[in-house]
Amino acid sequence: MDRTRIEAARARIADHARVTPVTRLDLGGFDVEVKLEQLQHTGSFKVRGAFETLLSGPVPAAGIVAASGGNHGAAVGYAAAALGHPAHVFVPEVAGPAKIALIERSGAACHVVPGLYADALDAARAHEAETGAMQIHAYDGPGTVAGQGTCFAEWEEQGLDADTVLVAVGGGGLIAGALAWFGGRRRVVAVEPETACALNAALAAGAPVDVAVSGIAANALGARRIGSICFDLARGAGAGLVSVTVPDAAIADARDLLWREARQWVEPAGACALAALISGAYSPAPGERVAVLVCGANPEPDPVAGASA
Amino acid sequence: MDRTRIEAARARIADHARVTPVTRLDLGGFDVEVKLEQLQHTGSFKVRGAFETLLSGPVPAAGIVAASGGNHGAAVGYAAAALGHPAHVFVPEVAGPAKIALIERSGAACHVVPGLYADALDAARAHEAETGAMQIHAYDGPGTVAGQGTCFAEWEEQGLDADTVLVAVGGGGLIAGALAWFGGRRRVVAVEPETACALNAALAAGAPVDVAVSGIAANALGARRIGSICFDLARGAGAGLVSVTVPDAAIADARDLLWREARQWVEPAGACALAALISGAYSPAPGERVAVLVCGANPEPDPVAGASA
Repeated sequence: MDRTRIEAARARIADHARVTPVTRLDLGGFDVEVKLEQLQHTGSFKVRGAFETLLSGPVPAAGIVAASGGNHGAAVGYAAAALGHPAHVFVPEVAGPAKIALIERSGAACHVVPGLYADALDAARAHEAETGAMQIHAYDGPGTVAGQGTCFAEWEEQGLDADTVLVAVGGGGLIAGALAWFGGRRRVVAVEPETACALNAALAAGAPVDVAVSGIAANALGARRIGSICFDLARGAGAGLVSVTVPDAAIADARDLLWREARQWVEPAGACALAALISGAYSPAPGERVAVLVCGANPEPDPVAGASA
Repeated sequence: MDRTRIEAARARIADHARVTPVTRLDLGGFDVEVKLEQLQHTGSFKVRGAFETLLSGPVPAAGIVAASGGNHGAAVGYAAAALGHPAHVFVPEVAGPAKIALIERSGAACHVVPGLYADALDAARAHEAETGAMQIHAYDGPGTVAGQGTCFAEWEEQGLDADTVLVAVGGGGLIAGALAWFGGRRRVVAVEPETACALNAALAAGAPVDVAVSGIAANALGARRIGSICFDLARGAGAGLVSVTVPDAAIADARDLLWREARQWVEPAGACALAALISGAYSPAPGERVAVLVCGANPEPDPVAGASA
């Protein structure tokens, strides 16, 4: 995975993914560059990888299959519908009603599986074996990583100034894209919930290991094991990567702060990167310029589902 | 009111108001330039006028007084606190708990008055007469209009491309700023709820007239009579201004669409301009490029007040 592949992905998905806005905000005492990637189609960065995977190779007549905590499934459903492919999405119960409804609105056939993301992945693999459908992995596929990397290529073109970019990590597709794109030119801070920290645990162990998964952001960041593409890039990043974890309470505080200070209502995972700043899990040096990717906003409950009038 | 005054306002408030992000979205079948002004401090454009008023003339020791449906009061409270002045805000009951809490958080003394905005204005004028405090009018003061006009000056510098800019109208401070800034160089569409249409009624009558006020956006757009600065600019705008009204249901649809398609959760008034497009109240000609100002996001209930965790 390298910049050339990400540049190619950017050209391929240009007609399908939105260019999301960037801005500068004073948040919790920090002057922060922010990219509002939750304005992306289906409310998260995930459509970037979905389109890149579908557009960079042949798609079988059996269509697409994916396993997802919710956001990836909605993105795959959206991309498949846009390009005219059938799609099946396997989603764990933990995804919750809002994300399940989002997947159903995308037009994909949505199958709810008891358990966590890993259980949905088992079911998706069984469907793949049975039907010949193309599996779009939520984080550990080259198309997925290259697509997510376009987010950072785009941000640089929009004038990203920061020394350091903070990114939330689940299975590692997004951070892998960041590491591949930046290639050490900017520091990347990988932020995980203490309750779902597959990258942090892998770096400590020297190899991907299984972790227990729970907590406030489990349906978005709750991968049991870090992806191998991500792990290889992370191991090679040296001082270009800092891995931190944050408590669930800090994630909730960051989510509330984004609303109170900037009227951006996001899901917990979408505020996870900011949580590292405001909790002190990552403390910038004096003069260090920081940027935060707001990566998703499919909260439970959905505000529109509860809207009056 | 002219561009020179608005340019001066822009310089004065530059250290206090945020530059809010702009983006391009596909919404309801329209390709729309959008300015997300709800990322402004206190969740609406109102701080622009509040800072300009406070910074463009002397402020008495008795401080500031304002009447407000909610957003202006929060903005005045915020600006007064930032500049070290005491502030009293009179707010009608119709503002609702979320906006009243927002004003209280700003640090202003908040007085809740039975009735609508006009009743709060009477109470604020009594306070002004009694104490010598400086009244910051919610829409009909030169500082207020010049400050709101900076929103459009900023948007042009950010690359605004549209032929036509749609703006929600309450008492007319924001649209007056738009008319003064654009000066006929772009078409301005003034969008009002059918349930609160002081400008539309004034244009029909040939003079400002009282209108009945109710409906989904009453606490933000519910002025009983259009401001005189706005009316004079509107009368002089000729074909540069189009006045339309939208039903409350279209406003609710537009609000829900902004969430569903772009994860921007706003109050009804914040979606009022978009409602004109998606309801057909304003139909762009073929090839006409349109822009929508998203002007506020202090919904009832406040999502954070209801947030779990």
